[in-house]
Amino acid sequence: MDLDFTSEQEMLRKSVAEFLSKECPFEHVKELEESEEGYSPKLWKKMAELGWMELYFPEEYEGLGDPFANVTIIMEEMGKAAFPSPYFSTVVVCGLILLEGGSEKQKKDLLPKIASGKLIMTLAQYEREAGYTEKGISMPAKLDSDTYILNGKKMFVMDANIADKIIAAAKVENEGTTLFLVDAKDSGITVRKIPTIGKDNTCEVVFDNVSVSKDAIIGKPGEGWEILEKMGNKAIVAKCAEMLGGCKESIDMTATYAKQRVQYATPIGAFQAIQHYMANMKLAYDTSINYLYLTAWMADKGTLTNLESSTLKAQVNEQYKFIAERSVQIHGGIGTTREFNIGLFYRRAKAFEYVLGDTQHHYERIAQGLNI
Amino acid sequence: MDLDFTSEQEMLRKSVAEFLSKECPFEHVKELEESEEGYSPKLWKKMAELGWMELYFPEEYEGLGDPFANVTIIMEEMGKAAFPSPYFSTVVVCGLILLEGGSEKQKKDLLPKIASGKLIMTLAQYEREAGYTEKGISMPAKLDSDTYILNGKKMFVMDANIADKIIAAAKVENEGTTLFLVDAKDSGITVRKIPTIGKDNTCEVVFDNVSVSKDAIIGKPGEGWEILEKMGNKAIVAKCAEMLGGCKESIDMTATYAKQRVQYATPIGAFQAIQHYMANMKLAYDTSINYLYLTAWMADKGTLTNLESSTLKAQVNEQYKFIAERSVQIHGGIGTTREFNIGLFYRRAKAFEYVLGDTQHHYERIAQGLNI
Amino acid sequence: MDLDFTSEQEMLRKSVAEFLSKECPFEHVKELEESEEGYSPKLWKKMAELGWMELYFPEEYEGLGDPFANVTIIMEEMGKAAFPSPYFSTVVVCGLILLEGGSEKQKKDLLPKIASGKLIMTLAQYEREAGYTEKGISMPAKLDSDTYILNGKKMFVMDANIADKIIAAAKVENEGTTLFLVDAKDSGITVRKIPTIGKDNTCEVVFDNVSVSKDAIIGKPGEGWEILEKMGNKAIVAKCAEMLGGCKESIDMTATYAKQRVQYATPIGAFQAIQHYMANMKLAYDTSINYLYLTAWMADKGTLTNLESSTLKAQVNEQYKFIAERSVQIHGGIGTTREFNIGLFYRRAKAFEYVLGDTQHHYERIAQGLNI
Amino acid sequence: MDLDFTSEQEMLRKSVAEFLSKECPFEHVKELEESEEGYSPKLWKKMAELGWMELYFPEEYEGLGDPFANVTIIMEEMGKAAFPSPYFSTVVVCGLILLEGGSEKQKKDLLPKIASGKLIMTLAQYEREAGYTEKGISMPAKLDSDTYILNGKKMFVMDANIADKIIAAAKVENEGTTLFLVDAKDSGITVRKIPTIGKDNTCEVVFDNVSVSKDAIIGKPGEGWEILEKMGNKAIVAKCAEMLGGCKESIDMTATYAKQRVQYATPIGAFQAIQHYMANMKLAYDTSINYLYLTAWMADKGTLTNLESSTLKAQVNEQYKFIAERSVQIHGGIGTTREFNIGLFYRRAKAFEYVLGDTQHHYERIAQGLNI
Repeated sequence: MDLDFTSEQEMLRKSVAEFLSKECPFEHVKELEESEEGYSPKLWKKMAELGWMELYFPEEYEGLGDPFANVTIIMEEMGKAAFPSPYFSTVVVCGLILLEGGSEKQKKDLLPKIASGKLIMTLAQYEREAGYTEKGISMPAKLDSDTYILNGKKMFVMDANIADKIIAAAKVENEGTTLFLVDAKDSGITVRKIPTIGKDNTCEVVFDNVSVSKDAIIGKPGEGWEILEKMGNKAIVAKCAEMLGGCKESIDMTATYAKQRVQYATPIGAFQAIQHYMANMKLAYDTSINYLYLTAWMADKGTLTNLESSTLKAQVNEQYKFIAERSVQIHGGIGTTREFNIGLFYRRAKAFEYVLGDTQHHYERIAQGLNI
Repeated sequence: MDLDFTSEQEMLRKSVAEFLSKECPFEHVKELEESEEGYSPKLWKKMAELGWMELYFPEEYEGLGDPFANVTIIMEEMGKAAFPSPYFSTVVVCGLILLEGGSEKQKKDLLPKIASGKLIMTLAQYEREAGYTEKGISMPAKLDSDTYILNGKKMFVMDANIADKIIAAAKVENEGTTLFLVDAKDSGITVRKIPTIGKDNTCEVVFDNVSVSKDAIIGKPGEGWEILEKMGNKAIVAKCAEMLGGCKESIDMTATYAKQRVQYATPIGAFQAIQHYMANMKLAYDTSINYLYLTAWMADKGTLTNLESSTLKAQVNEQYKFIAERSVQIHGGIGTTREFNIGLFYRRAKAFEYVLGDTQHHYERIAQGLNI
Repeated sequence: MDLDFTSEQEMLRKSVAEFLSKECPFEHVKELEESEEGYSPKLWKKMAELGWMELYFPEEYEGLGDPFANVTIIMEEMGKAAFPSPYFSTVVVCGLILLEGGSEKQKKDLLPKIASGKLIMTLAQYEREAGYTEKGISMPAKLDSDTYILNGKKMFVMDANIADKIIAAAKVENEGTTLFLVDAKDSGITVRKIPTIGKDNTCEVVFDNVSVSKDAIIGKPGEGWEILEKMGNKAIVAKCAEMLGGCKESIDMTATYAKQRVQYATPIGAFQAIQHYMANMKLAYDTSINYLYLTAWMADKGTLTNLESSTLKAQVNEQYKFIAERSVQIHGGIGTTREFNIGLFYRRAKAFEYVLGDTQHHYERIAQGLNI
Repeated sequence: MDLDFTSEQEMLRKSVAEFLSKECPFEHVKELEESEEGYSPKLWKKMAELGWMELYFPEEYEGLGDPFANVTIIMEEMGKAAFPSPYFSTVVVCGLILLEGGSEKQKKDLLPKIASGKLIMTLAQYEREAGYTEKGISMPAKLDSDTYILNGKKMFVMDANIADKIIAAAKVENEGTTLFLVDAKDSGITVRKIPTIGKDNTCEVVFDNVSVSKDAIIGKPGEGWEILEKMGNKAIVAKCAEMLGGCKESIDMTATYAKQRVQYATPIGAFQAIQHYMANMKLAYDTSINYLYLTAWMADKGTLTNLESSTLKAQVNEQYKFIAERSVQIHGGIGTTREFNIGLFYRRAKAFEYVLGDTQHHYERIAQGLNI
């Protein structure tokens, strides 16, 4: 056994952390949250120059061929910084979909554009009255001679307001779930940003007679769900890295506050009740992050299954909420004001719970694995 | 034993519920939340006409002499409606302070004005680096010949941005905590509304050489804490009524949603996991509301102590958060959007936790009562 | 509203407490636990003389006509004393069944015998592969000319090893659940006491061709479940009184221990972590006991439904386990030894969870009441 | 990174599992629990022959030089089998103490005897009114010319009733905590086995003028605590392996039961509430076992600190109780009877909580590490 990161990985972590801390302090995060775009095109360009986009893409697509674990390192640091960007949508979710299901042509065409920061992409999967399983995908894609016509409404599409391309999951008659690559600027597409607790780019996307040619399918008709499942297990690892980064920063920020805030001539960190709270939060974090590293390692080894990704997401969903809630509690009333940064994490804890499946969904998947 | 409400009380409840549902549906609540004043002067006037302000004031001050329990009925219904107004600050907190500690002159002067809806008041007690106990009050009131000079900053002052008068808790040398009645429009007073998760009128109030005459003291110098304690125990009952109203509405709203939302051809309310969640929420509510009624009865009987008010607030703090969190969870991702009303309660659950003491503070008070 | 007990009730509580503390200290409880009978016939006789058995029976059956609430007072005190006896089986469960469903003859015959302490009875309802609902009763009672023949095995029959009569729930073809009054000494009946964590009189009862005459039916054929449901709701209130008595004693015992046990020159009760634990336990108890009194009042008023009895049992099941677990934890390792009395309550907390329905069962019943 | 066990380790696990399942099925475990010795000398001898005792001892002391991780593999399997033996006391606790602090002579003398199964040892550390820290050790060892005289009472000494030698922690004036190797059969030593919930060899050991020569000190006078700390961190890993073995077996046993037990024509494992319970238990186990393997790896690497061992013990303490409690719950009432094996784990979960520190103690140590 060996559980250490390599020195290259440690260096990557350090450089990501330094970049974000210098270029996007919390005050800037709050500004971005209030902006319509919800991200900084300037920083997006710099990130591309630093090689963050392509690092796990294979070399034949101009990538660096790094392990996927390196993506989780970047996501962890983004989580600590509460950094808003379409990195997860574009590089992780759509990048994985293309790698898992894309044709050579699609990969050669799109991955280098993602790598260079010139292409923002997102996935439109969820619908209004539906869960996280394949049954939840009901938008029809109707074959009309050589093209498919998409009609329907997708919900919770991240970053659709800034995306260049959208991968839409739709149902093809007699075939099943199919992934379509569509142009986000298509005249049949209407994007509406929805205000949420996450203050992020959550969008509703309406497809009104959007016509897509056959070669814009990723994989084959009916292969969509299999591709989404493969992507999902890895993307959960990356998302949980971001969430655990948020846990870590919440704990550190709260520990610092507990040392500084003097109540009745004693720092509140000296109170036993606060100490036990902090110990509990630390324990929740340490056991979770260790499980994250296991899944990242399995992802690269090719042994990651539904069971582990669901265990991870269910665990991190609940622990992030627990840690963020306690962090605000320890800050006291001041923690509920927008002026204090702890609220950034409190809101993300609730918002990220729904990304790639809420806790109930993952309990179901774990139970399926138990075969009872 | 008899645990029923009287028919007069049932009628009061019904009339409050009908008024709020007609005059202030959730869409209007959201508009008020976005407004600078954070309340509706028009509805405030109507509430006064309906007699909500004076109902528990003694008849000699133009009140109706109703039991305090009737105030909790109004607060419960306000909680269900997520209704924003300075009722709690003015009628409950300041009304109780005046009744507990005010001079005849103060009571005769101010209570009828509150009753008629012409006077909005609030209490400025908390400070930045401090808790909920008397030690937390450190702002000095310095005696200068015949007047006291107040200098300092108060935090979490509700409704100060719309108040006519502020009761400021300050420390008088050699005397201790003292309550001063000051004019909110005094030129030495600066009020700043602070954005919080509650989207309510949380304010910071700076006192800069505010001079107050001796006869503006409520009670005597040094009696402030005793008055605040007496007010606090009763006001907690009223606040918890509001919070439990919010719990009730969260449960009802979520039950309705669970019946309507069809997932894979089945209403989600038919899933056993959702049913057990709902049962848990109902259980938490039913045991809590029953305890609330006990404390309301004790408040009127004169037997309410720190132990019961702290047990109530600690219980309701945690159960409201639990119920609101689960409610959002059952709604799924859609529950995190501003378009759905469940978010109103989710935010209030977190914000109200700090009103009159957070859970930790009340655990301390319960432990003191255990004498271990 | 009025939430006080009458002075007669306070006197009853006092006299029960004094009797048990004098006649059955914990050392004696432990001896009884190790004995085959599991109770003290001598004390049983004294209890009868004190009028504990008949107090809620109507006067026409030689009872005192007291409210059922008085039974809960006795049960509460028995719970504090961890007192083992067939009081619950005989007086509460079988007493209620007879009152709800018995014929005049059965009531006139049996209730006075219970009152005088000469008759121990129990209910045989549960079966091996089954839950707490009517479906769980499958033992057949086959009509053979004028008598019914019972064949089957019943589980978790309390006090069958010392009972004179057993009420057996069985299924009559075309009729449904039916209650049969059988002689516990019938040669077709085999009773086996089963060692459990509760160290109580949990028995398995085998019916081998036990023949029962038609007039030994309680109520009519097919009415059994309705009678059991009526009994169940009230009996839950009594059992929860016993359980909450155990909670109270656990808290008191632990508070005393926390004051006495000096660790590093400080009583452990002075540690903030212990204080918050104790506050939590107290809060759990106070909210629960208040809900108990509500249900006792409803039982006497005739308004108690499944919803309240299930809310009560689910709440008390979980809170008793929580309080007992924490009590042992605060005692430290010494709390796990048989020499310390806290273990009496720890074991009962787990054992009583299954009496008249475990938490899951009651969640189901609450959910049914929510109608989602 | 590499998180796999070696094939040698997999083989070891398999052979331990097979041995225990064949030689000590649960029925035999229950017999051993009821016996005075509480273990099987016959199996103890066989275990020695299989090389379980010496496997992690260095080769110079006739050991195999295996990593400590291999001990955790054995302990995990013992945990699954609920196997009672003095392996933990002798091989883990005393073995580690000798390795960390013993003189060459002591190691050469004692380790081979442990290896051959001829020597049972235990540690006497805890006292009545005390916690798990150094301050808790107050028994004096008084120097009298060339020997030390021990007088005092030790509590919670595991396996003292079958031990040949006891390592006693005592206080030497001006030196501090010191470890003494004493003969368990010394006439000044009285051992009393105490009945506990664990039904294990928990003993009270009284030292009455026990004289020990200077060369029976392990390490030097005053070095006792440092040795105990080093031992403790590793021994926690081994104990938690045993506890997590118990968790695994509880889950497997309960899953099997849930598949087999048919309620109303459906296996209870098909109910969503049971599935979510099981998912929760599995999640708790998977995240914990992964953390265990991290700490085992750190133990061998030499980087294990208080922080990780305390995080592990606090986590496993709470998760074992949670898993065992839920397991009994899913079994229903039958789970509380001695005839069902799930009770073996339920009792161990509570008993093992106190071994090498309860949860509160470890929260304290984690908080110290947080430096707040």
